[in-house]
Amino acid sequence: MREFGAYRVTREAVLAFAREFDPQPFHVDDPAAEASLNGRLPASGWHTCAIAMRMMCDAYLLESASLGSPGLEKLSWKKPVYPGDMHVRLEVLESRPMASRSDVGILRSRWEVMNQDDETVLTMEGYGMFRRRTAAAI
Amino acid sequence: MREFGAYRVTREAVLAFAREFDPQPFHVDDPAAEASLNGRLPASGWHTCAIAMRMMCDAYLLESASLGSPGLEKLSWKKPVYPGDMHVRLEVLESRPMASRSDVGILRSRWEVMNQDDETVLTMEGYGMFRRRTAAAI
Repeated sequence: MREFGAYRVTREAVLAFAREFDPQPFHVDDPAAEASLNGRLPASGWHTCAIAMRMMCDAYLLESASLGSPGLEKLSWKKPVYPGDMHVRLEVLESRPMASRSDVGILRSRWEVMNQDDETVLTMEGYGMFRRRTAAAI
Repeated sequence: MREFGAYRVTREAVLAFAREFDPQPFHVDDPAAEASLNGRLPASGWHTCAIAMRMMCDAYLLESASLGSPGLEKLSWKKPVYPGDMHVRLEVLESRPMASRSDVGILRSRWEVMNQDDETVLTMEGYGMFRRRTAAAI
């Protein structure tokens, strides 16, 4: 398990992302947010995902032989995200060569995003593809 | 099953999103993209998710009693997304009152995003919470 990242989410960024991609009233309008389950303006869940991605890029993906991702499982938006400081935890669950391409490895990992109070706001398990140093003998 | 949406993804938008949230070389640099599994510059998978969200908002969520989402399962980035025209399909798989709050309903649905050639580029199954017209008698 590794922990890293320091990403400041501002109210302006929350509004800008939501206006472009997720303009539900409780993401873009203070009174609607106050009347919602959250009580105040939370970030779009997709914004939280994008922020997690940016922290993973800065922490290790840009230095890696990443080839992208085929998908993920079990994404949970655990708590609303308000403006503040985010960080992440990364746990590698499994790694194996890709069945169809021995020069590509598949990594299954768990991402966890925390807010400034170290409360978990997002968890997900996903897959990443990476170029392997040497092709597996199959 | 409903089908709707018309969202034009531009190269400029692909680059802007990737530079902010997913600056892996194959998302922001043409030569790196050409050398990658994709062959040319694809949108970040999170950008595709955000675009799907926007199409769902415009098609029905903004008119609904949506309360947000607790999460999703089985998200697959099936094909790279290049600049072009996207649309979506929505299939409702299940609806039930929330166990802990009878005034809130849970909808399980499947989202599918297609490109201009009607190729599926993204699928996911997720959950949405909605205010119910009348609380369930439990």
